[in-house]
Amino acid sequence: MKALITTVPFGDKDRLPLDLLEKNGVEYLINPLGRKLVESELAEMVSDFDIIIAGTELITDYVMERGKKLKIISRVGIGLDSVDLLAAERRGIKVSYTPDAPAPAVAELTIGLMLSLIRSVQIANLKIHEGVWHRYFGTRLSESTIGIIGMGRIGSSVLRHLSGFNCKRILINDIEEKILIHNEVNVSLVSKEEIFKEADVISLHVPLTSQTKSMINKKHLEMMKPNTVIINTARGGIINEADLYDVMSAGHLSGAAIDVFEEEPYSGRLNELPNCLLTAHMGSMSIDCRTRMEIEATEEAIRFVTGEVLLGIVPESEYAVQREGL
Amino acid sequence: MKALITTVPFGDKDRLPLDLLEKNGVEYLINPLGRKLVESELAEMVSDFDIIIAGTELITDYVMERGKKLKIISRVGIGLDSVDLLAAERRGIKVSYTPDAPAPAVAELTIGLMLSLIRSVQIANLKIHEGVWHRYFGTRLSESTIGIIGMGRIGSSVLRHLSGFNCKRILINDIEEKILIHNEVNVSLVSKEEIFKEADVISLHVPLTSQTKSMINKKHLEMMKPNTVIINTARGGIINEADLYDVMSAGHLSGAAIDVFEEEPYSGRLNELPNCLLTAHMGSMSIDCRTRMEIEATEEAIRFVTGEVLLGIVPESEYAVQREGL
Repeated sequence: MKALITTVPFGDKDRLPLDLLEKNGVEYLINPLGRKLVESELAEMVSDFDIIIAGTELITDYVMERGKKLKIISRVGIGLDSVDLLAAERRGIKVSYTPDAPAPAVAELTIGLMLSLIRSVQIANLKIHEGVWHRYFGTRLSESTIGIIGMGRIGSSVLRHLSGFNCKRILINDIEEKILIHNEVNVSLVSKEEIFKEADVISLHVPLTSQTKSMINKKHLEMMKPNTVIINTARGGIINEADLYDVMSAGHLSGAAIDVFEEEPYSGRLNELPNCLLTAHMGSMSIDCRTRMEIEATEEAIRFVTGEVLLGIVPESEYAVQREGL
Repeated sequence: MKALITTVPFGDKDRLPLDLLEKNGVEYLINPLGRKLVESELAEMVSDFDIIIAGTELITDYVMERGKKLKIISRVGIGLDSVDLLAAERRGIKVSYTPDAPAPAVAELTIGLMLSLIRSVQIANLKIHEGVWHRYFGTRLSESTIGIIGMGRIGSSVLRHLSGFNCKRILINDIEEKILIHNEVNVSLVSKEEIFKEADVISLHVPLTSQTKSMINKKHLEMMKPNTVIINTARGGIINEADLYDVMSAGHLSGAAIDVFEEEPYSGRLNELPNCLLTAHMGSMSIDCRTRMEIEATEEAIRFVTGEVLLGIVPESEYAVQREGL
């Protein structure tokens, strides 16, 4: 069997996933373009492969149509917005993922981005590197109202990390009622609108679905307080990028940290704004989490090859999200 | 009485300290140069004033000699390295400070700098703003050994914030045996040398004294692991800047976050290094802490003017530090 590894970098810090493939006689090709593939590139590349060990590139019905031998998509990561699950189901292509591995790395990065934004760290750094010394004022998490939208694996970790900061209030929004968090002091379950209006720091931890696409647009951004900061380490497009640019270039919001973009690699206009802290889809890029994701996705591919029971198979609920969304 | 306010900005986000001075009939001048004064500038400015509401500029015997009317120095902040306490004592000039107010802001900034460094946030941000997309690998606090040197108000707050991250190990060094921290899981009291050799993340929270000046020089930096990151939000000069530049430009250490410099405003060579995250002495610059510092230092000056008991007077132990160091 042959595997196309589309996500890059891969096997870079730890060769183990590549060794596993070799030991099990799986031929592989690592994405030769070295960046996220667009649909047509992947469609052109896929014909010869049984397995995709996949990043976040679009794997559409069209791609699958061109992948006549394709039998399993093993996602390195948690998001499934890039994979047309219903097309895969129709075509009998299995889809697996690694939902637990990225969370710890994404959650830590999120806290770092919060703290950078509320203290203008990235602006001061940029300025000093240009030879300009300016002491920026900031705020503290301890005196802030934090809004977390999405209380899955990552949102919950963010909440846990915040426990050492004694935040003024933490407002949570989730599609499910999370009973457990009621026990925490200063934490309340509220509507998204309440978060938009009240939070000083807003962080998103929801998947990208037809429900969450452009979930935060101009209207919502304008609802926020003038000095609110917003963080997106979830998926590009949950905050409408064009609206964010418009609102921030008009001087509203004191900062945004964006790690994920509608198109990646990103080359849009947010980079004109010094109070936009931009990172390159690095949420899961701690060496340990990234390695764990690569190994788990590879092991799943090998279980498929050797006929073992698959452990990372995407649950029916994820199919339902796409079915109801379409 | 007349007060010279040397620290800038002052009364910027909250006019209350200026209102207090006015209400109590204290004439004041805010440092007209708008940046940290050098010794000669302050010496020239001071002659007419009874009070200095002081930043971190040098207040030497020479300055006091020129300040014939000077009766009290009220420091906005905690560090006393800039004030010649023994000269003040000889001349009968009182010295007060605000030791508690800055700690919460410095501690939060420190955690933010740690998280930025270990995920190369500032490098990715710089690159994307230049149009270059690169996904940097990083590490996590949860899998790191953290070394904290200095367990005063700020170091203790840093430790508290880290409690939500479940760090692998936290190594503490302090001149005093801190019994309390023994109760915390994964926290151990060790020598500075052990921290240099073992920690992945090192943060400094000691005052600048003759003992701590250049406490970390080339020898110590080279003892550190190649991927260690180091943070200085304490005082410039505790890490020898020239040595840090040499060691890092040779490729040792994966990052440094420096908020305080031997000379401020800083214009040295560390700004050639993209993995040096540089901020402009902003540790205490959260609006609430800065305001509290300004108000406390002003209230102390007013207590002096009105003959009330001073509440922020510098304790004998600080004089002893300078006496033994000299």
